[in-house]
Amino acid sequence: MSKDRINKVHDALSRSNLDALVLNPGASQLYVSGLHFHLMERPVILIIRKGGTQAIILPELELQKLADLPYEINNYPYGENPEEWSLAFKKAMSDLDLDGKVIGMESLSLRMMEYGYLTEAAREANFQDAQELISSLRLTKEDNEVTALREAVNIAQNALVNTLPLIRVGMSEKEIAGELSLQLFRSGSQPELPFSPIVSAGLNAANPHAVPTDRKLKEGDLLVIDWGARVDGYISDLTRTFAIGEVDPEMVKIHNVVREANAAGRAAGEPGKSCAVVDMAARNVIEKSGYGKFFTHRTGHGIGMEPHEEPYMRGDNLQIMQVGMTYTVEPGIYIPDINGVRIEDDMVVTKTGSESLSNMDRHIRVIG
Amino acid sequence: MSKDRINKVHDALSRSNLDALVLNPGASQLYVSGLHFHLMERPVILIIRKGGTQAIILPELELQKLADLPYEINNYPYGENPEEWSLAFKKAMSDLDLDGKVIGMESLSLRMMEYGYLTEAAREANFQDAQELISSLRLTKEDNEVTALREAVNIAQNALVNTLPLIRVGMSEKEIAGELSLQLFRSGSQPELPFSPIVSAGLNAANPHAVPTDRKLKEGDLLVIDWGARVDGYISDLTRTFAIGEVDPEMVKIHNVVREANAAGRAAGEPGKSCAVVDMAARNVIEKSGYGKFFTHRTGHGIGMEPHEEPYMRGDNLQIMQVGMTYTVEPGIYIPDINGVRIEDDMVVTKTGSESLSNMDRHIRVIG
Repeated sequence: MSKDRINKVHDALSRSNLDALVLNPGASQLYVSGLHFHLMERPVILIIRKGGTQAIILPELELQKLADLPYEINNYPYGENPEEWSLAFKKAMSDLDLDGKVIGMESLSLRMMEYGYLTEAAREANFQDAQELISSLRLTKEDNEVTALREAVNIAQNALVNTLPLIRVGMSEKEIAGELSLQLFRSGSQPELPFSPIVSAGLNAANPHAVPTDRKLKEGDLLVIDWGARVDGYISDLTRTFAIGEVDPEMVKIHNVVREANAAGRAAGEPGKSCAVVDMAARNVIEKSGYGKFFTHRTGHGIGMEPHEEPYMRGDNLQIMQVGMTYTVEPGIYIPDINGVRIEDDMVVTKTGSESLSNMDRHIRVIG
Repeated sequence: MSKDRINKVHDALSRSNLDALVLNPGASQLYVSGLHFHLMERPVILIIRKGGTQAIILPELELQKLADLPYEINNYPYGENPEEWSLAFKKAMSDLDLDGKVIGMESLSLRMMEYGYLTEAAREANFQDAQELISSLRLTKEDNEVTALREAVNIAQNALVNTLPLIRVGMSEKEIAGELSLQLFRSGSQPELPFSPIVSAGLNAANPHAVPTDRKLKEGDLLVIDWGARVDGYISDLTRTFAIGEVDPEMVKIHNVVREANAAGRAAGEPGKSCAVVDMAARNVIEKSGYGKFFTHRTGHGIGMEPHEEPYMRGDNLQIMQVGMTYTVEPGIYIPDINGVRIEDDMVVTKTGSESLSNMDRHIRVIG
């Protein structure tokens, strides 16, 4: 698989103005190379040189990871003393003849640390953001990638099904998040969750990116749970909103509006249309209901090896949907200091439209 | 707490040549501000301006997180369309009068994306790595930080105690890592583990940063488990090495050497001495045994809110140990394609020497 992907990069490079692509540890480096490194204090830079070579600058103690790779790679290892590191960069950039050349990088992943070593080693090189080239590699998913996403969705759904019966008035958001994380593992998620579950109730639910607190669940709360699993490096990202006992009738109304907006957004995905139509379909429902100003974010984002990636489902994004693109539909209404609702599903664009990978009931459900 | 810490930054700035400090989401931003943001595609930049103001550039949908902060902060929110983002940066940098000024940043955390917006907004500003200033804030831990680290160690130890009886010949490294992760949660770790447990057996144990595989445990393997928990944002990082059934006598010998090296490294920590002495004490034991060339990494690293941070325990690091510094001691011997041993503890420098926060038995123990 990695050999095909490296060839994909070489193809993309040959059609670009770039002489090379440099990748930092993270989803793109893993996608291209099959190599799993963490972003830490020791730099690990993968270089794909237009024309056919690849190289990696890495700590000596990581050399073992290069054994049994299905493609050739030149390695530039360095020792533990940071004073030696720039030598490895200089040797690599010189061997690959990259000074004065155009080098693509991922501005969302390359740090000033690596950029410092790279520019010191190739002072006349011209570094450009290669987001477009990298997106062209990862934007549409192959069948085995969709299979992994589907499995990540199933594991997440099973984990929440097992968590719901344990939720009681008086439990804190943190306790619920801990229990759900445990169930994610038990259901088969990889240990590295895509993100810590968001569990927010009552006025905390008015914050779309809330961090679980010690606040205890009360009768009348809405409870937002935003969670996901990871399988073979691919992740899920779902949200459901529950009622704790009897809630204010306006909350029930808001929940219905968001559920209809979610359904409209899910129905709008289709190859050949722009990403904007997904956002507009969902937003339109909420605006008509009069709650438009409380839907404060885009309708969704791409999903794959990263929790947020291209394509973004925004009303101004004219990017065209293609078969195999995967993304979330997650409209919400957030009433400041009062409450919030979000309902989120993971979608894949199919030949005839789009399919929701997630199918857990979306109606308001009383728990606790 | 966050107010004191912001004041600490202002004190440090007033003694530096910097006019401001910019911080990206991550440990330092959280340490200074108490604000918890993930590093994603939407930039979130905290700016501390010498002389007394602070500001934050962030997505509108995150504004709720600024409610109830114990200090004042000027906010520069932006909407969902990336074309608007640079306006927020320009307004902030202009209000703070930062063009042409000296701005400190963290090169291990600031990405090219944020750097691009910052330099576009302040073309004549001079960006410098402020690693030293930031380290001076986080390098020695206060009592409540050591308490959290101690708790993270206890949780990790309890989790492994609960996992060991479940380990059997025939289990895969991945299965053991999954079970251990589950036990980490059950024992009270925060959902965001500091790192996925490393579980590596037999020849995989020869790779210090191995990723768990489907390889199944066999009689005669050494089994390296490197794991940690997170509590209140602070983490533990421990390693123990076990024998699966009867192992080669040379493996027992290597294990004893590493255990002695670990003990020597733990005994060497003392305020006023250099970090190098810890590395030399551990390394000396391994070199005397004849296995020196198989100890391929530094003896340890600082530990706190990040899995690796200052101070680094290297033979060339003349940094002086101070009361409250926390770090790992983790010598290892790695015989390529054969086997490996590592034993790791978490330490704190005390007034009279140093204390190991971890106390789990370090002798070779037969399991499986």
